[in-house]
Amino acid sequence: MVKKMESSRFEKQIRFIKEIDKLKRISRQTILMDGSRQENSAEHSWHVAIMAIVLSEYAQNAAIDWLRVLKMLLIHDLVEIDAGDTFCYSAQKCEDKELREQKAADRIFNLLPKDQGEEFRTLWNEFEAQTSSESLFAAALDRLQPVLHNYHNNGKTWQKNHVISRQVLARNEITKHEAPFLWEYTINLIEEAVSRGMLSR
Amino acid sequence: MVKKMESSRFEKQIRFIKEIDKLKRISRQTILMDGSRQENSAEHSWHVAIMAIVLSEYAQNAAIDWLRVLKMLLIHDLVEIDAGDTFCYSAQKCEDKELREQKAADRIFNLLPKDQGEEFRTLWNEFEAQTSSESLFAAALDRLQPVLHNYHNNGKTWQKNHVISRQVLARNEITKHEAPFLWEYTINLIEEAVSRGMLSR
Repeated sequence: MVKKMESSRFEKQIRFIKEIDKLKRISRQTILMDGSRQENSAEHSWHVAIMAIVLSEYAQNAAIDWLRVLKMLLIHDLVEIDAGDTFCYSAQKCEDKELREQKAADRIFNLLPKDQGEEFRTLWNEFEAQTSSESLFAAALDRLQPVLHNYHNNGKTWQKNHVISRQVLARNEITKHEAPFLWEYTINLIEEAVSRGMLSR
Repeated sequence: MVKKMESSRFEKQIRFIKEIDKLKRISRQTILMDGSRQENSAEHSWHVAIMAIVLSEYAQNAAIDWLRVLKMLLIHDLVEIDAGDTFCYSAQKCEDKELREQKAADRIFNLLPKDQGEEFRTLWNEFEAQTSSESLFAAALDRLQPVLHNYHNNGKTWQKNHVISRQVLARNEITKHEAPFLWEYTINLIEEAVSRGMLSR
């Protein structure tokens, strides 16, 4: 198909591009800010990538590699194509999350040519391990984004799932390492959400 | 709200991050590859950004600034929040597209602090003008992505809108400047779509 010019390398790249279309059908617990529907993981990834650009000045480490941060955020949820979105406040569902996601990463990143598959896997591993400034900042935004959504849609996801403020704080604590200003903001936002009755203490 | 630590600069950034959530509600003519529903402009922007990473080796200019390409693709459709998605094969709708989008750019990018608003506006202007390698490569992917979608969902959008192969070719011709390999691929893909009856000649 599509003649001889299409090398096996290119075929793999196109197959990957086709495969990741499925992320648009993975629903998250987060509700859009206007309250209209659940967010999907593709548009979430887009949103956090732009947040990284807009909020870059709040990174503690000024020498961050921003291309790496963006790549990481763009691909960080691809494993959900197989593993689904695991709700972060569900201990039960989180139990086998790692195993499911590792299996998914094996399959999905291996669709790419070897060098690119390895690059993406390394980025994803780094995001999961949160060992670098890039991954810590990326993870901070991944946590902050649903807090903003909840705050602006009157806490829909928090209330539906009986999430309490201590849980939101604990989940966002990672933010303090690489983005202390955003961590202070998050604390205040959560406090405000409690005082407005969107979130239980 | 959220106390004094929140500077006016930061408030503007958060307002922008909130505003762009609306792009998730802008429907494009493109149908997802599984044929299930229309794509929205936020998930489209995510998809083309990953395509840029995966297909980077096909850029003619090896010295491309990839961070610039990614930023451009992530923000290229934000004007649609006000201007809506203009179907590229509708001459009538395209008539006042530029005016509507300029107005939208004025409003949306001005939500940001001045320096960031100017950076985004410059990126968007460059994407629209297609004067640099970065913007030519970004635009090439923006054109290729819906061709891939149509090819994989049996030409749903092409057929619904009576688009013919000459129009698709003309719209994708920009690809040849910065990504000649992808242009050859596109020509073959369109030919294949015609021979499979998905697209009229």
